[in-house]
Amino acid sequence: MAVRVDLNISLDGFATTTDQTPENPFGEDWPRLTTAYTSTRTFRERVLHDTSGEGTTGVDDQYAVAYFDELGAEIMGAGMFGLHNFPDDPDWKGWWGDEPPFRIPVFVLTHGTARPPIEFENGTVFHFLEATPQEALDRALAVADGKDVRIGGGPTVVQDYLRAGLVDQLHVAIAPILLGRGIRLWDDLRGLEAGYEVIAETAESGTVHLTFRR
Amino acid sequence: MAVRVDLNISLDGFATTTDQTPENPFGEDWPRLTTAYTSTRTFRERVLHDTSGEGTTGVDDQYAVAYFDELGAEIMGAGMFGLHNFPDDPDWKGWWGDEPPFRIPVFVLTHGTARPPIEFENGTVFHFLEATPQEALDRALAVADGKDVRIGGGPTVVQDYLRAGLVDQLHVAIAPILLGRGIRLWDDLRGLEAGYEVIAETAESGTVHLTFRR
Repeated sequence: MAVRVDLNISLDGFATTTDQTPENPFGEDWPRLTTAYTSTRTFRERVLHDTSGEGTTGVDDQYAVAYFDELGAEIMGAGMFGLHNFPDDPDWKGWWGDEPPFRIPVFVLTHGTARPPIEFENGTVFHFLEATPQEALDRALAVADGKDVRIGGGPTVVQDYLRAGLVDQLHVAIAPILLGRGIRLWDDLRGLEAGYEVIAETAESGTVHLTFRR
Repeated sequence: MAVRVDLNISLDGFATTTDQTPENPFGEDWPRLTTAYTSTRTFRERVLHDTSGEGTTGVDDQYAVAYFDELGAEIMGAGMFGLHNFPDDPDWKGWWGDEPPFRIPVFVLTHGTARPPIEFENGTVFHFLEATPQEALDRALAVADGKDVRIGGGPTVVQDYLRAGLVDQLHVAIAPILLGRGIRLWDDLRGLEAGYEVIAETAESGTVHLTFRR
C-alpha cells in the first residue's frame, strides 16, 4: 500500500499548461506534453475506449499499464477535476465522460464548495471534500482495500503531498520539449531526492521516465 | 564543424549553483551537481591529472570522452573563468592550475576589462574579448582548424547562443537531484526542440544524458 504520483512534465519542469481558453480548455501545449502517454495502447483502451488494439506498446505503454495497476483510490485537486473551469455548473462530472477511467473512489479536494458524490456504473465515484492532505489521504486509504492511493494532480496538490512527506513513489514522464510557461512541478522541493532511490529509463519516444521510490 | 554545448544540470534545471562563498568558491551544491562527471576516469585523467586509472568507465565516461573529443576552440563567460570572483587580480589564470584541460584556444567574454592573453605549454591559450556571441564565434571558428567549437558556459552565455540559434548540439547531463536554487538553463527557451533531434540515454549513475542535435 503506497502513495503514488504519476505526472507528465516538460524538460523545463512544467506539469500544467496555462494556455487554456474557454473554447480550448486544455490549451495547445497539453497535447504536446502528454502525447507519449496518450499514444499508448493502454491509454487508448482505458481512457478513449478504443479497442482496435492501436497505440504504442513500448516503454511508454509499460508505464501506462503500471499507471492503472493496483490502485485503490485517487485524490485530485479541484482544478484537475475541472471545478475552476465550470464553477457554476452543478452538473459538471469531470472531463472523462460517462466512463471515467478510474473505476475506483476519487476524492476531489475543494475549497468550500460542497457537492454530493457522483457515482458511475464502472466503479468510479467522485467524492468532494475540503480537507488537509493528511485527512484526504486517510479517507482514501480507508477505502483503498489495501491497494495504492494515487495523488493524481495537479502539480500544486502534488507539491503539497511531496512537501508533507506523504508520497512513496513519484513517477514523472519527462517530454523532451520546452514549454517555457505553466506551473512548475519542482518549485521549492530542494533535496526531495533524499530518502528516495531514483530510477531513470528512456522510452522510444524520447520520453524519460524518472521514478523516485522509497 | 559544429557548435557544441555540454552542461551539468539538476532535475529542476539549475546549471549554476549560487551558494558560493569566498572560502568555498564552488559552493556545496556544485560537487553534487557534477559528481557523475567528476567521477569518470576521463575527468580524473584529463582535469585532475590522475593517471591511476581509477574512475567510472560506463555511460558517463563515454560522454566525458566525447566532451574533449574533436574540439578546436572554446568560448566561455567571465564568470566561468572566475573574473567575477577575482576581478582585481591581474594574475588570475582561471580555476584549472598550470595545466588547464582545454589544450586549445579559449575565448573569455569580458565586459570591458581588457587583459593580455594567457598561454600555457599544453596548448591552452585564454583570449579575453568583448564581443557579441556571433563575433566571438567567428573568432573561435577562425582558429578551430575545422574542428568543433564549444560554448563552455555558464548558463547565461549558453542561453545567449541558444537564443541566437547558433548551437548545433546541446548535451545536458541531468543529475537526479533537486537544487531549488541557482541559475536555470531553460528559462525563456520555449520551443527550443524545434529543428533538433532529441536523444536521451540513462547512465548507471542515474544521470540522464539528453542531447539536442541538428
